Amino acid sequence: MTRWKLILEWDGEPFMGWQRQDHGPSVQGAIERAARQMTGEDVTAHASGRTDAGVHALAMPVHIDLEKTLDAHRLQEGLNALLRPDPVAVLSAEEVAPDWHARFSCLGRRYLYRISNRRAPLALDRGRAWRIAKPLDLAAMQEAAAHLVGHHDFTTFRSVNCQSDSPLKTLDRLEVEQVGDEIHVHAAARSFLHHQVRSMVGCLGLVGMGQWSPDSMRAALEARDRAALGLNAPAEGLYFAGALYEGPDA
Amino acid sequence: MTRWKLILEWDGEPFMGWQRQDHGPSVQGAIERAARQMTGEDVTAHASGRTDAGVHALAMPVHIDLEKTLDAHRLQEGLNALLRPDPVAVLSAEEVAPDWHARFSCLGRRYLYRISNRRAPLALDRGRAWRIAKPLDLAAMQEAAAHLVGHHDFTTFRSVNCQSDSPLKTLDRLEVEQVGDEIHVHAAARSFLHHQVRSMVGCLGLVGMGQWSPDSMRAALEARDRAALGLNAPAEGLYFAGALYEGPDA
Repeated sequence: MTRWKLILEWDGEPFMGWQRQDHGPSVQGAIERAARQMTGEDVTAHASGRTDAGVHALAMPVHIDLEKTLDAHRLQEGLNALLRPDPVAVLSAEEVAPDWHARFSCLGRRYLYRISNRRAPLALDRGRAWRIAKPLDLAAMQEAAAHLVGHHDFTTFRSVNCQSDSPLKTLDRLEVEQVGDEIHVHAAARSFLHHQVRSMVGCLGLVGMGQWSPDSMRAALEARDRAALGLNAPAEGLYFAGALYEGPDA
Repeated sequence: MTRWKLILEWDGEPFMGWQRQDHGPSVQGAIERAARQMTGEDVTAHASGRTDAGVHALAMPVHIDLEKTLDAHRLQEGLNALLRPDPVAVLSAEEVAPDWHARFSCLGRRYLYRISNRRAPLALDRGRAWRIAKPLDLAAMQEAAAHLVGHHDFTTFRSVNCQSDSPLKTLDRLEVEQVGDEIHVHAAARSFLHHQVRSMVGCLGLVGMGQWSPDSMRAALEARDRAALGLNAPAEGLYFAGALYEGPDA
Protein backbone atom coordinates (compact mmCIF):
# COMPACT_ATOMS: atom_id res chain seq x y z
CA MET A 1 0.00 0.00 0.00
CA THR A 2 1.24 3.45 -0.89
CA ARG A 3 -0.10 6.67 0.57
CA TRP A 4 -0.24 9.47 -1.96
CA LYS A 5 -0.41 13.19 -1.26
CA LEU A 6 -2.25 15.01 -4.03
CA ILE A 7 -2.58 18.77 -4.36
CA LEU A 8 -5.92 19.65 -5.96
CA GLU A 9 -7.25 22.78 -7.61
CA TRP A 10 -10.98 23.06 -8.26
CA ASP A 11 -13.75 25.38 -9.29
CA GLY A 12 -16.40 25.02 -6.58
CA GLU A 13 -19.32 26.19 -8.72
CA PRO A 14 -20.73 22.79 -9.83
CA PHE A 15 -20.04 20.96 -6.56
CA MET A 16 -22.03 20.48 -3.34
CA GLY A 17 -18.66 20.92 -1.61
CA TRP A 18 -15.73 18.63 -0.81
CA GLN A 19 -17.66 15.91 1.01
CA ARG A 20 -19.23 12.96 -0.82
CA GLN A 21 -23.02 13.40 -1.10
CA ASP A 22 -25.81 11.13 -2.22
CA HIS A 23 -27.78 13.96 -3.79
CA GLY A 24 -25.21 15.79 -5.89
CA PRO A 25 -21.65 16.06 -7.21
CA SER A 26 -18.76 16.51 -4.78
CA VAL A 27 -15.01 16.91 -5.22
CA GLN A 28 -14.36 13.90 -2.97
CA GLY A 29 -16.68 11.81 -5.12
CA ALA A 30 -14.94 12.97 -8.31
CA ILE A 31 -11.40 12.15 -7.13
CA GLU A 32 -12.46 8.80 -5.60
CA ARG A 33 -14.22 7.80 -8.82
CA ALA A 34 -11.18 8.71 -10.93
CA ALA A 35 -8.86 6.74 -8.62
CA ARG A 36 -11.19 3.73 -8.71
CA GLN A 37 -11.36 3.84 -12.51
CA MET A 38 -7.60 3.93 -12.68
CA THR A 39 -6.84 1.14 -10.17
CA GLY A 40 -10.03 -0.89 -9.67
CA GLU A 41 -9.63 -0.24 -5.94
CA ASP A 42 -12.16 1.23 -3.50
CA VAL A 43 -10.55 4.51 -2.55
CA THR A 44 -11.34 6.99 0.22
CA ALA A 45 -9.93 10.49 -0.17
CA HIS A 46 -9.11 12.69 2.84
CA ALA A 47 -8.67 16.46 2.47
CA SER A 48 -6.91 18.97 4.69
CA GLY A 49 -10.18 20.86 5.00
CA ARG A 50 -13.81 20.23 4.13
CA THR A 51 -15.19 23.05 2.01
CA ASP A 52 -18.81 24.05 1.39
CA ALA A 53 -20.73 24.21 -1.88
CA GLY A 54 -19.34 26.89 -4.19
CA VAL A 55 -16.01 27.24 -2.35
CA HIS A 56 -12.93 26.94 -4.58
CA ALA A 57 -9.49 25.45 -3.96
CA LEU A 58 -6.18 26.79 -5.26
CA ALA A 59 -4.10 24.09 -3.54
CA MET A 60 -5.90 21.55 -1.38
CA PRO A 61 -3.80 18.67 0.03
CA VAL A 62 -5.60 15.34 -0.15
CA HIS A 63 -4.40 11.81 0.53
CA ILE A 64 -5.43 8.45 -0.88
CA ASP A 65 -4.08 4.92 -0.34
CA LEU A 66 -3.46 2.67 -3.34
CA GLU A 67 -2.40 -0.99 -3.48
CA LYS A 68 -1.42 -0.74 -7.13
CA THR A 69 2.15 0.38 -7.78
CA LEU A 70 2.29 3.53 -9.86
CA ASP A 71 4.78 6.30 -10.42
CA ALA A 72 3.80 9.81 -9.38
CA HIS A 73 3.79 11.24 -12.88
CA ARG A 74 1.54 8.49 -14.23
CA LEU A 75 -0.84 8.81 -11.30
CA GLN A 76 -1.17 12.57 -11.81
CA GLU A 77 -1.69 12.33 -15.56
CA GLY A 78 -4.11 9.42 -15.25
CA LEU A 79 -6.25 11.11 -12.62
CA ASN A 80 -6.33 14.35 -14.60
CA ALA A 81 -7.48 12.50 -17.73
CA LEU A 82 -10.21 10.66 -15.80
CA LEU A 83 -11.40 13.76 -13.92
CA ARG A 84 -12.46 15.44 -17.17
CA PRO A 85 -14.86 17.19 -17.63
CA ASP A 86 -15.10 17.96 -13.90
CA PRO A 87 -13.25 21.21 -13.07
CA VAL A 88 -10.78 19.49 -10.74
CA ALA A 89 -7.05 19.29 -11.46
CA VAL A 90 -4.29 17.33 -9.73
CA LEU A 91 -1.44 19.87 -9.49
CA SER A 92 1.02 17.36 -8.03
CA ALA A 93 1.25 13.82 -6.67
CA GLU A 94 3.91 12.48 -4.30
CA GLU A 95 4.42 9.44 -2.11
CA VAL A 96 4.23 10.14 1.62
CA ALA A 97 4.73 8.10 4.80
CA PRO A 98 1.81 5.78 5.68
CA ASP A 99 1.08 7.79 8.84
CA TRP A 100 0.91 11.14 7.03
CA HIS A 101 -2.66 12.46 7.09
CA ALA A 102 -3.96 15.35 4.99
CA ARG A 103 -6.22 16.49 7.81
CA PHE A 104 -4.66 15.35 11.07
CA SER A 105 -1.04 16.12 10.14
CA CYS A 106 -1.96 19.61 8.99
CA LEU A 107 -0.38 22.41 11.03
CA GLY A 108 -1.95 25.39 9.30
CA ARG A 109 -4.51 26.42 6.70
CA ARG A 110 -4.71 29.50 4.53
CA TYR A 111 -7.75 30.99 2.81
CA LEU A 112 -8.15 33.80 0.29
CA TYR A 113 -11.39 35.72 -0.01
CA ARG A 114 -11.94 37.87 -3.12
CA ILE A 115 -14.27 40.87 -2.99
CA SER A 116 -14.83 42.68 -6.29
CA ASN A 117 -15.60 46.29 -5.46
CA ARG A 118 -17.36 47.66 -8.52
CA ARG A 119 -20.80 48.69 -9.70
CA ALA A 120 -21.03 46.43 -12.76
CA PRO A 121 -21.93 42.74 -12.45
CA LEU A 122 -19.07 40.29 -12.95
CA ALA A 123 -18.84 38.81 -16.44
CA LEU A 124 -15.41 37.16 -16.34
CA ASP A 125 -15.35 36.54 -12.56
CA ARG A 126 -18.92 35.40 -12.09
CA GLY A 127 -18.99 32.81 -9.30
CA ARG A 128 -15.38 33.71 -8.40
CA ALA A 129 -15.78 36.74 -6.14
CA TRP A 130 -18.29 38.60 -3.95
CA ARG A 131 -19.27 41.81 -5.71
CA ILE A 132 -19.97 44.83 -3.51
CA ALA A 133 -21.10 47.86 -5.52
CA LYS A 134 -20.60 50.46 -2.77
CA PRO A 135 -17.02 51.81 -2.52
CA LEU A 136 -15.34 50.11 0.43
CA ASP A 137 -13.28 51.80 3.16
CA LEU A 138 -10.08 49.74 3.13
CA ALA A 139 -8.52 51.35 6.23
CA ALA A 140 -11.65 50.68 8.29
CA MET A 141 -11.67 47.04 7.18
CA GLN A 142 -8.00 46.70 8.14
CA GLU A 143 -8.67 48.21 11.56
CA ALA A 144 -11.64 45.87 12.12
CA ALA A 145 -9.66 42.80 11.00
CA ALA A 146 -6.96 43.50 13.58
CA HIS A 147 -9.52 42.96 16.37
CA LEU A 148 -9.96 39.34 15.32
CA VAL A 149 -6.32 38.26 15.15
CA GLY A 150 -5.17 36.17 18.12
CA HIS A 151 -6.64 33.56 20.45
CA HIS A 152 -10.38 34.12 20.90
CA ASP A 153 -13.74 32.50 21.42
CA PHE A 154 -15.14 32.74 17.86
CA THR A 155 -18.72 31.65 18.71
CA THR A 156 -20.12 34.69 16.86
CA PHE A 157 -18.35 33.61 13.66
CA ARG A 158 -19.29 29.93 13.83
CA SER A 159 -22.03 28.13 11.93
CA VAL A 160 -24.78 26.49 14.00
CA ASN A 161 -23.73 23.26 12.23
CA CYS A 162 -20.10 23.53 13.35
CA GLN A 163 -18.83 20.20 14.76
CA SER A 164 -15.73 21.55 16.47
CA ASP A 165 -15.42 20.67 20.18
CA SER A 166 -14.47 24.19 21.13
CA PRO A 167 -15.12 27.70 19.75
CA LEU A 168 -11.61 28.73 20.84
CA LYS A 169 -9.26 29.25 17.91
CA THR A 170 -6.05 31.16 17.26
CA LEU A 171 -6.29 33.32 14.18
CA ASP A 172 -2.72 33.93 13.01
CA ARG A 173 -3.42 36.29 10.16
CA LEU A 174 -6.34 38.34 8.81
CA GLU A 175 -5.05 40.82 6.27
CA VAL A 176 -7.05 43.04 3.98
CA GLU A 177 -5.35 44.37 0.84
CA GLN A 178 -6.42 46.28 -2.26
CA VAL A 179 -5.57 44.58 -5.56
CA GLY A 180 -6.82 46.68 -8.48
CA ASP A 181 -10.60 46.97 -8.06
CA GLU A 182 -10.62 43.95 -5.76
CA ILE A 183 -10.14 43.61 -2.04
CA HIS A 184 -8.42 40.41 -0.95
CA VAL A 185 -8.73 39.03 2.56
CA HIS A 186 -6.01 36.58 3.62
CA ALA A 187 -6.76 34.37 6.63
CA ALA A 188 -4.43 31.85 8.27
CA ALA A 189 -4.84 29.63 11.33
CA ARG A 190 -4.04 26.13 12.50
CA SER A 191 -7.72 25.40 11.93
CA PHE A 192 -10.98 27.27 11.46
CA LEU A 193 -14.54 26.82 12.69
CA HIS A 194 -17.25 26.04 10.14
CA HIS A 195 -18.13 29.26 8.22
CA GLN A 196 -15.54 31.22 10.23
CA VAL A 197 -13.82 32.85 7.25
CA ARG A 198 -17.07 33.71 5.48
CA SER A 199 -18.52 35.09 8.72
CA MET A 200 -15.48 37.25 9.40
CA VAL A 201 -15.43 38.51 5.80
CA GLY A 202 -19.17 39.24 5.85
CA CYS A 203 -18.65 41.53 8.85
CA LEU A 204 -15.58 43.09 7.22
CA GLY A 205 -17.88 43.89 4.26
CA LEU A 206 -20.29 45.69 6.60
CA VAL A 207 -17.39 47.69 8.02
CA GLY A 208 -16.16 48.54 4.52
CA MET A 209 -19.62 49.74 3.50
CA GLY A 210 -19.82 51.93 6.64
CA GLN A 211 -22.71 49.97 8.18
CA TRP A 212 -20.46 48.86 11.02
CA SER A 213 -17.64 50.76 12.73
CA PRO A 214 -14.33 48.94 13.17
CA ASP A 215 -15.14 48.73 16.89
CA SER A 216 -18.38 46.89 16.12
CA MET A 217 -16.19 43.98 15.07
CA ARG A 218 -14.67 43.78 18.56
CA ALA A 219 -18.14 44.02 20.09
CA ALA A 220 -19.40 41.20 17.85
CA LEU A 221 -16.44 39.02 18.86
CA GLU A 222 -16.93 39.75 22.55
CA ALA A 223 -20.66 38.96 22.33
CA ARG A 224 -19.77 35.27 21.75
CA ASP A 225 -23.21 34.89 20.21
CA ARG A 226 -24.11 33.84 16.64
CA ALA A 227 -26.95 36.40 16.79
CA ALA A 228 -24.28 39.15 16.87
CA LEU A 229 -23.08 38.13 13.40
CA GLY A 230 -23.71 40.83 10.83
CA LEU A 231 -23.45 38.89 7.60
CA ASN A 232 -22.10 35.61 6.24
CA ALA A 233 -20.22 36.33 3.00
CA PRO A 234 -21.19 34.21 -0.05
CA ALA A 235 -19.26 30.99 -0.70
CA GLU A 236 -18.25 31.96 -4.24
CA GLY A 237 -15.55 34.42 -3.12
CA LEU A 238 -13.75 31.87 -0.90
CA TYR A 239 -10.64 29.92 -1.92
CA PHE A 240 -8.77 27.32 0.12
CA ALA A 241 -5.29 28.66 -0.64
CA GLY A 242 -2.89 26.21 1.00
CA ALA A 243 -1.89 24.10 3.98
CA LEU A 244 1.20 23.66 6.08
CA TYR A 245 2.83 20.39 7.27
CA GLU A 246 5.91 19.48 9.23
CA GLY A 247 9.10 18.53 7.52
CA PRO A 248 10.42 19.35 4.08
CA ASP A 249 6.89 19.91 2.78
CA ALA A 250 6.33 22.84 5.10
CA MET B 1 -30.76 61.18 -30.55
CA THR B 2 -27.96 60.53 -28.10
CA ARG B 3 -24.82 58.56 -28.89
CA TRP B 4 -23.65 56.45 -25.97
CA LYS B 5 -20.20 55.03 -25.41
CA LEU B 6 -20.36 51.81 -23.41
CA ILE B 7 -17.38 49.89 -22.07
CA LEU B 8 -18.15 46.16 -22.05
CA GLU B 9 -16.56 43.20 -20.30
CA TRP B 10 -17.48 39.71 -21.44
CA ASP B 11 -16.61 36.06 -21.13
CA GLY B 12 -16.26 34.84 -24.73
CA GLU B 13 -16.94 31.17 -23.96
CA PRO B 14 -20.68 30.99 -24.82
CA PHE B 15 -20.53 33.39 -27.78
CA MET B 16 -19.89 32.96 -31.50
CA GLY B 17 -17.93 36.21 -31.21
CA TRP B 18 -18.84 39.89 -31.23
CA GLN B 19 -20.73 39.95 -34.51
CA ARG B 20 -24.47 39.23 -34.71
CA GLN B 21 -25.08 35.73 -36.13
CA ASP B 22 -28.17 33.88 -37.27
CA HIS B 23 -26.94 30.55 -35.96
CA GLY B 24 -25.80 31.31 -32.43
CA PRO B 25 -25.38 33.81 -29.59
CA SER B 26 -23.20 36.89 -30.09
CA VAL B 27 -22.21 39.77 -27.83
CA GLN B 28 -23.56 42.29 -30.35
CA GLY B 29 -26.90 40.46 -30.37
CA ALA B 30 -27.01 40.42 -26.55
CA ILE B 31 -26.35 44.16 -26.12
CA GLU B 32 -28.72 45.11 -28.96
CA ARG B 33 -31.49 42.97 -27.47
CA ALA B 34 -31.00 44.51 -24.01
CA ALA B 35 -31.08 48.05 -25.47
CA ARG B 36 -34.21 47.25 -27.48
CA GLN B 37 -35.94 45.82 -24.39
CA MET B 38 -35.08 48.95 -22.46
CA THR B 39 -36.15 51.54 -25.06
CA GLY B 40 -38.35 49.82 -27.63
CA GLU B 41 -35.95 51.10 -30.29
CA ASP B 42 -34.14 49.15 -33.00
CA VAL B 43 -30.53 49.50 -31.96
CA THR B 44 -27.28 48.73 -33.79
CA ALA B 45 -24.15 48.36 -31.67
CA HIS B 46 -20.68 49.14 -33.04
CA ALA B 47 -17.54 47.87 -31.30
CA SER B 48 -13.96 49.06 -31.46
CA GLY B 49 -12.93 45.61 -32.65
CA ARG B 50 -14.71 42.50 -33.84
CA THR B 51 -13.63 39.47 -31.85
CA ASP B 52 -13.87 35.79 -32.72
CA ALA B 53 -15.72 33.03 -30.89
CA GLY B 54 -14.20 32.35 -27.47
CA VAL B 55 -12.28 35.64 -27.28
CA HIS B 56 -12.88 37.66 -24.10
CA ALA B 57 -13.07 41.39 -23.48
CA LEU B 58 -11.80 43.24 -20.43
CA ALA B 59 -12.81 46.70 -21.72
CA MET B 60 -14.37 46.90 -25.19
CA PRO B 61 -15.68 50.32 -26.28
CA VAL B 62 -19.02 50.09 -28.07
CA HIS B 63 -21.45 52.78 -29.22
CA ILE B 64 -25.21 52.81 -29.63
CA ASP B 65 -27.65 55.58 -30.60
CA LEU B 66 -30.84 56.04 -28.58
CA GLU B 67 -33.78 58.40 -29.16
CA LYS B 68 -35.06 57.93 -25.62
CA THR B 69 -33.60 60.32 -23.05
CA LEU B 70 -31.85 58.46 -20.24
CA ASP B 71 -29.19 59.27 -17.72
CA ALA B 72 -25.93 57.35 -17.88
CA HIS B 73 -26.38 55.60 -14.54
CA ARG B 74 -29.87 54.36 -15.40
CA LEU B 75 -28.74 53.16 -18.82
CA GLN B 76 -25.85 51.18 -17.32
CA GLU B 77 -27.94 49.62 -14.57
CA GLY B 78 -30.84 48.84 -16.92
CA LEU B 79 -28.65 47.18 -19.54
CA ASN B 80 -26.83 45.15 -16.89
CA ALA B 81 -30.13 43.90 -15.47
CA LEU B 82 -31.41 42.94 -18.94
CA LEU B 83 -28.16 41.29 -20.03
CA ARG B 84 -28.49 38.63 -17.32
CA PRO B 85 -27.77 35.74 -17.50
CA ASP B 86 -25.42 36.44 -20.43
CA PRO B 87 -21.83 36.95 -19.16
CA VAL B 88 -21.63 40.52 -20.47
CA ALA B 89 -21.29 43.55 -18.19
CA VAL B 90 -21.52 47.26 -18.95
CA LEU B 91 -18.61 48.73 -16.97
CA SER B 92 -19.49 52.34 -17.82
CA ALA B 93 -21.81 54.43 -20.00
CA GLU B 94 -21.25 58.01 -21.11
CA GLU B 95 -22.70 60.41 -23.65
CA VAL B 96 -20.38 61.17 -26.58
CA ALA B 97 -20.52 63.48 -29.61
CA PRO B 98 -22.74 62.22 -32.46
CA ASP B 99 -19.71 61.81 -34.74
CA TRP B 100 -17.74 59.70 -32.24
CA HIS B 101 -17.41 56.15 -33.56
CA ALA B 102 -16.22 53.16 -31.50
CA ARG B 103 -14.43 51.69 -34.52
CA PHE B 104 -13.53 54.56 -36.83
CA SER B 105 -12.49 57.04 -34.10
CA CYS B 106 -10.26 54.42 -32.45
CA LEU B 107 -6.55 55.30 -32.47
CA GLY B 108 -5.18 52.19 -30.82
CA ARG B 109 -6.11 48.74 -29.58
CA ARG B 110 -4.55 46.59 -26.86
CA TYR B 111 -4.78 42.83 -26.40
CA LEU B 112 -3.67 40.53 -23.60
CA TYR B 113 -2.91 36.89 -24.27
CA ARG B 114 -2.65 34.53 -21.27
CA ILE B 115 -0.56 31.36 -21.49
CA SER B 116 -0.71 29.06 -18.46
CA ASN B 117 2.58 27.21 -18.32
CA ARG B 118 1.91 24.15 -16.20
CA ARG B 119 1.46 20.42 -16.50
CA ALA B 120 -1.97 20.12 -14.85
CA PRO B 121 -5.17 20.96 -16.73
CA LEU B 122 -6.84 24.25 -15.78
CA ALA B 123 -9.69 23.89 -13.29
CA LEU B 124 -10.27 27.52 -12.30
CA ASP B 125 -9.01 29.07 -15.56
CA ARG B 126 -10.56 26.64 -18.01
CA GLY B 127 -11.49 28.56 -21.17
CA ARG B 128 -9.49 31.56 -19.93
CA ALA B 129 -5.93 30.72 -20.99
CA TRP B 130 -3.88 28.55 -23.36
CA ARG B 131 -2.19 25.82 -21.33
CA ILE B 132 1.26 24.72 -22.46
CA ALA B 133 2.63 21.87 -20.35
CA LYS B 134 6.26 22.12 -21.52
CA PRO B 135 8.35 24.72 -19.60
CA LEU B 136 8.67 27.81 -21.78
CA ASP B 137 11.86 29.76 -22.49
CA LEU B 138 10.82 33.31 -21.63
CA ALA B 139 14.00 34.99 -22.91
CA ALA B 140 13.70 33.27 -26.30
CA MET B 141 10.07 34.37 -26.59
CA GLN B 142 11.05 37.95 -25.76
CA GLU B 143 13.80 37.88 -28.39
CA ALA B 144 11.40 36.50 -31.00
CA ALA B 145 8.71 39.07 -30.15
CA ALA B 146 11.12 41.93 -30.79
CA HIS B 147 11.40 40.87 -34.45
CA LEU B 148 7.71 41.64 -34.99
CA VAL B 149 7.53 45.12 -33.49
CA GLY B 150 7.42 47.94 -36.06
CA HIS B 151 5.96 48.50 -39.54
CA HIS B 152 5.81 45.23 -41.46
CA ASP B 153 3.90 43.19 -44.00
CA PHE B 154 2.12 40.73 -41.65
CA THR B 155 0.76 38.42 -44.38
CA THR B 156 2.17 35.38 -42.53
CA PHE B 157 0.15 36.28 -39.43
CA ARG B 158 -3.12 37.02 -41.23
CA SER B 159 -6.18 34.80 -41.54
CA VAL B 160 -7.25 33.83 -45.06
CA ASN B 161 -10.57 35.45 -44.17
CA CYS B 162 -8.99 38.80 -43.31
CA GLN B 163 -10.88 41.68 -44.93
CA SER B 164 -8.23 44.34 -44.44
CA ASP B 165 -7.17 46.17 -47.61
CA SER B 166 -3.50 45.85 -46.79
CA PRO B 167 -1.30 43.43 -44.83
CA LEU B 168 0.91 46.36 -43.74
CA LYS B 169 0.50 47.20 -40.07
CA THR B 170 2.54 48.95 -37.41
CA LEU B 171 2.88 46.84 -34.28
CA ASP B 172 3.67 49.27 -31.44
CA ARG B 173 4.19 46.76 -28.67
CA LEU B 174 4.63 43.01 -28.27
CA GLU B 175 5.85 42.26 -24.76
CA VAL B 176 6.21 38.90 -23.10
CA GLU B 177 6.26 38.78 -19.30
CA GLN B 178 6.18 36.09 -16.63
CA VAL B 179 3.35 36.42 -14.06
CA GLY B 180 3.49 33.55 -11.58
CA ASP B 181 3.07 30.34 -13.60
CA GLU B 182 1.58 32.31 -16.50
CA ILE B 183 3.16 34.07 -19.44
CA HIS B 184 1.33 37.19 -20.56
CA VAL B 185 1.74 38.64 -24.04
CA HIS B 186 0.77 42.31 -24.43
CA ALA B 187 0.12 43.54 -27.96
CA ALA B 188 -0.73 47.10 -29.04
CA ALA B 189 -1.27 48.67 -32.47
CA ARG B 190 -3.52 51.17 -34.19
CA SER B 191 -5.24 48.12 -35.69
CA PHE B 192 -4.62 44.43 -36.24
CA LEU B 193 -5.23 41.97 -39.06
CA HIS B 194 -7.72 39.16 -38.51
CA HIS B 195 -6.07 36.48 -36.30
CA GLN B 196 -2.86 38.54 -36.08
CA VAL B 197 -2.47 38.37 -32.30
CA ARG B 198 -3.32 34.66 -32.11
CA SER B 199 -0.95 33.90 -34.99
CA MET B 200 1.91 35.84 -33.40
CA VAL B 201 1.29 34.20 -30.02
CA GLY B 202 1.09 30.73 -31.60
CA CYS B 203 4.57 31.22 -33.04
CA LEU B 204 5.83 32.66 -29.75
CA GLY B 205 4.59 29.43 -28.16
CA LEU B 206 6.68 27.39 -30.62
CA VAL B 207 9.72 29.51 -29.75
CA GLY B 208 9.07 29.07 -26.03
CA MET B 209 8.83 25.29 -26.45
CA GLY B 210 12.11 25.25 -28.38
CA GLN B 211 10.52 24.09 -31.65
CA TRP B 212 11.43 27.40 -33.28
CA SER B 213 14.49 29.56 -32.72
CA PRO B 214 13.90 33.28 -32.13
CA ASP B 215 15.30 33.89 -35.63
CA SER B 216 12.61 31.63 -37.12
CA MET B 217 10.14 34.35 -36.19
CA ARG B 218 11.96 36.85 -38.40
CA ALA B 219 12.10 34.30 -41.22
CA ALA B 220 8.36 33.66 -40.87
CA LEU B 221 7.64 37.40 -41.02
CA GLU B 222 9.89 37.89 -44.03
CA ALA B 223 8.26 34.96 -45.88
CA ARG B 224 5.05 37.05 -46.19
CA ASP B 225 3.23 33.77 -46.66
CA ARG B 226 0.46 32.26 -44.50
CA ALA B 227 2.05 28.84 -45.13
CA ALA B 228 5.03 30.01 -43.05
CA LEU B 229 2.81 30.31 -39.97
CA GLY B 230 3.76 27.83 -37.27
CA LEU B 231 0.63 27.79 -35.14
CA ASN B 232 -2.48 29.84 -34.46
CA ALA B 233 -2.98 30.08 -30.68
CA PRO B 234 -6.44 29.14 -29.34
CA ALA B 235 -9.06 31.88 -28.95
CA GLU B 236 -9.66 31.19 -25.26
CA GLY B 237 -6.41 32.87 -24.10
CA LEU B 238 -7.13 36.15 -25.90
CA TYR B 239 -8.58 39.26 -24.22
CA PHE B 240 -9.41 42.59 -25.88
CA ALA B 241 -7.83 44.76 -23.18
CA GLY B 242 -8.59 48.34 -24.18
CA ALA B 243 -8.78 51.02 -26.85
CA LEU B 244 -7.45 54.54 -27.26
CA TYR B 245 -9.30 57.62 -28.53
CA GLU B 246 -8.45 61.29 -29.00
CA GLY B 247 -9.34 63.82 -26.38
CA PRO B 248 -9.92 63.51 -22.67
CA ASP B 249 -10.81 59.82 -23.03
CA ALA B 250 -7.33 58.94 -24.24
